[in-house]
Amino acid sequence: MKSENLSDLVLANHILVNEGVLDGFGHISVRDPKNPQQFYIAKSMAPALVTEADLCVCNLDGDVVEPAGVKTYVERFIHSEIYRARPEVMSVIHSHSPAVIPFGVTGARLRPICHMSGFLGASVPVYEIRDHAGEHSDLLIRNQALGRTLAVTLGNANVSLMRGHGSVVVGHSIKQAVFRAIYTESNARLQQEASRLGDVNFLTDAEAQATSDMNDQHLDRPWEMWKRRVV
Amino acid sequence: MKSENLSDLVLANHILVNEGVLDGFGHISVRDPKNPQQFYIAKSMAPALVTEADLCVCNLDGDVVEPAGVKTYVERFIHSEIYRARPEVMSVIHSHSPAVIPFGVTGARLRPICHMSGFLGASVPVYEIRDHAGEHSDLLIRNQALGRTLAVTLGNANVSLMRGHGSVVVGHSIKQAVFRAIYTESNARLQQEASRLGDVNFLTDAEAQATSDMNDQHLDRPWEMWKRRVV
Amino acid sequence: MKSENLSDLVLANHILVNEGVLDGFGHISVRDPKNPQQFYIAKSMAPALVTEADLCVCNLDGDVVEPAGVKTYVERFIHSEIYRARPEVMSVIHSHSPAVIPFGVTGARLRPICHMSGFLGASVPVYEIRDHAGEHSDLLIRNQALGRTLAVTLGNANVSLMRGHGSVVVGHSIKQAVFRAIYTESNARLQQEASRLGDVNFLTDAEAQATSDMNDQHLDRPWEMWKRRVV
Amino acid sequence: MKSENLSDLVLANHILVNEGVLDGFGHISVRDPKNPQQFYIAKSMAPALVTEADLCVCNLDGDVVEPAGVKTYVERFIHSEIYRARPEVMSVIHSHSPAVIPFGVTGARLRPICHMSGFLGASVPVYEIRDHAGEHSDLLIRNQALGRTLAVTLGNANVSLMRGHGSVVVGHSIKQAVFRAIYTESNARLQQEASRLGDVNFLTDAEAQATSDMNDQHLDRPWEMWKRRVV
Repeated sequence: MKSENLSDLVLANHILVNEGVLDGFGHISVRDPKNPQQFYIAKSMAPALVTEADLCVCNLDGDVVEPAGVKTYVERFIHSEIYRARPEVMSVIHSHSPAVIPFGVTGARLRPICHMSGFLGASVPVYEIRDHAGEHSDLLIRNQALGRTLAVTLGNANVSLMRGHGSVVVGHSIKQAVFRAIYTESNARLQQEASRLGDVNFLTDAEAQATSDMNDQHLDRPWEMWKRRVV
Repeated sequence: MKSENLSDLVLANHILVNEGVLDGFGHISVRDPKNPQQFYIAKSMAPALVTEADLCVCNLDGDVVEPAGVKTYVERFIHSEIYRARPEVMSVIHSHSPAVIPFGVTGARLRPICHMSGFLGASVPVYEIRDHAGEHSDLLIRNQALGRTLAVTLGNANVSLMRGHGSVVVGHSIKQAVFRAIYTESNARLQQEASRLGDVNFLTDAEAQATSDMNDQHLDRPWEMWKRRVV
Repeated sequence: MKSENLSDLVLANHILVNEGVLDGFGHISVRDPKNPQQFYIAKSMAPALVTEADLCVCNLDGDVVEPAGVKTYVERFIHSEIYRARPEVMSVIHSHSPAVIPFGVTGARLRPICHMSGFLGASVPVYEIRDHAGEHSDLLIRNQALGRTLAVTLGNANVSLMRGHGSVVVGHSIKQAVFRAIYTESNARLQQEASRLGDVNFLTDAEAQATSDMNDQHLDRPWEMWKRRVV
Repeated sequence: MKSENLSDLVLANHILVNEGVLDGFGHISVRDPKNPQQFYIAKSMAPALVTEADLCVCNLDGDVVEPAGVKTYVERFIHSEIYRARPEVMSVIHSHSPAVIPFGVTGARLRPICHMSGFLGASVPVYEIRDHAGEHSDLLIRNQALGRTLAVTLGNANVSLMRGHGSVVVGHSIKQAVFRAIYTESNARLQQEASRLGDVNFLTDAEAQATSDMNDQHLDRPWEMWKRRVV
């Protein structure tokens, strides 16, 4: 893998903390473009502190391939099963992004309120782990079977909420996934505010698609700003 | 153009980011006082990173006059068409200023809640791009024709909201436009909060005018503080 | 006047900006203990930038006594008339503290929600300038006559809101006034939040008095922290 | 006591300020593992400024044992009486953590909304000091008798709100208490937001227990990040 990609993965960890998407928990991974059966992710640690030396390689069973003996996150199966189910996905972010949590625990549906978040599409699914792990679980995606059910809920969407837990966001690249994670949080905050003022005029499905396509051409612009803030 | 004006344009980019009006997107321009048929704006990049070397000159058709070959923002027509329609306007800001977005997508009207935002006047228009570009657009003002419809909606106002997108703010100078952009955001936040407490006692039209005139005499005061924070 | 007092006045300017009470506008003054007919205040400038060299002396008519020729704030009459009406007041703060604004423009009354803000007492008056200056004013306290009506509204209270404008807070010392200004803002934010959850159990009048007396014994504690943040 | 524990106590003071749990007031203590009849706490000062030289030792009557003559916080009885009543508790935090205050003064019950705050359990008690000190108190836990009533209200819970005042949080270690204090504040903020969107799907009691057990295995991860931010 190119070291550029790895240094972007480190940067993405720091950016996501600095922009309020990750705190001491949550993780981002990138699929290895040369071997799509494996992906890079940090070992089990706070994302703010990740360096290149802390990255490891996992396979799609969620086993660390190298370096030997390193332990990564309990919830690595979020990543491995989405990479298995979605061949075009190159980066996955799991976060407890705060403004998003309320949309996972109420009947309110997260929908695109402005042109920056068209990627949310017509519908953001909500994963209810109780349907799969019962009412006594610790809510973690701690094995392949649970990872698979989350991947099924995600389907072809770019974002899935996870009830009482957080969300998962996917992208065709680290930059796209980071963009989507940051603007998912932003959309949740704006939708929360707007919903108190009255009925919300959301993007049409066609507007959501068109704005999403348009933003994909400008992923470098905010990335350069977010990067400046952390280096 | 005096280099003082250009360094203020650079400062304004940084101030607007630092005060939460711009993020990785949005832009500010200043009309060339020596040639009112053209204006200065940064090339297509995150405003936080703009330096004097990144500024270019555009004409009122939205073409970059110099330096040759530089690409500026897709939405330069927001600026060019407002400069065409409003000869007294010397600076234009387009932003996705967060607290303002909810007022563009609900029936709630943005109105001046305190003496700092009298410039909002009796009524802040809302631009609905669907009325001009249909239901499939990417919401961007990407040509002269759309720019013209936005300028018509703005009319003689100082601020127009743009549904699902953001807002445009104009001024007689960079400092006035920056002041207005920052206090538009502030007013939106305060109005949102106040509207939850009960019926709001807004400024009368005469109070709005009087406070706006008064604030225009003190534009340097906050500017010096905002400047200190970014240099 | 002791230079200690003047350096505290400079510090107070910076602290109030840093803690979100003042922005580019608003002001704090301290009465001269050796000559109660005059007070110290900065010249007309952003409080964040005030140094000792920027302080001037005003008399209770609102005239600058020294240095000759210096211009202070238009609204100096807020200070002069309160010092005239309230001999025990040694410091006055006028701010546009954001969370407080909504309580000045709605029917909601600001009341002490926790032990840090007992000084708000049983009732915080709201000054409506329309009752004194009519419906066309710029909302500023720009002469002695308006200053006097504000002092009458304040009465014996520690805080008065000013509709569509901000608030005024008084204290027996700079530290007490700063404490009160910061916790007035904090109380407004908490009361706003609490009022959305249900009926609020405010402090009783006796609790308000007892907590206010108690906090007056600990004014140095937070001051040392606020000071550390700005020096 | 190991100096490691004392330096963690100093760090915890700074972390709790930096993460918005403490401001100029509030305190954290740690029980002496070698002598469970005493605990370490800072002398009466702003937590942001605490150094190891400012720590003192208290006994369970709330008397400072050493250094002689040092005065600690008026409300040291919160700590001493909880240590007396709960032998397994090794660290106690009292704060005015802002988002928590509204839940103490309204009928709304604080409940675990996501997996980070399972430690809140099925029910967070609210301490009403009026039931013990009458309607004229200054709300402070200023003697052993009041400390005892607070410990009774806390019972076996990890957190108790204090009406019009703040909260107390306990843990088996400094790190656990800090984790709980920070995520109590976070939960309050999220619950406030969610409750405006609709009925909230809280954790089941079994989920609360399971997530709490799980998080106890990862206390070092966020601690390392919080620490990095203050050193």
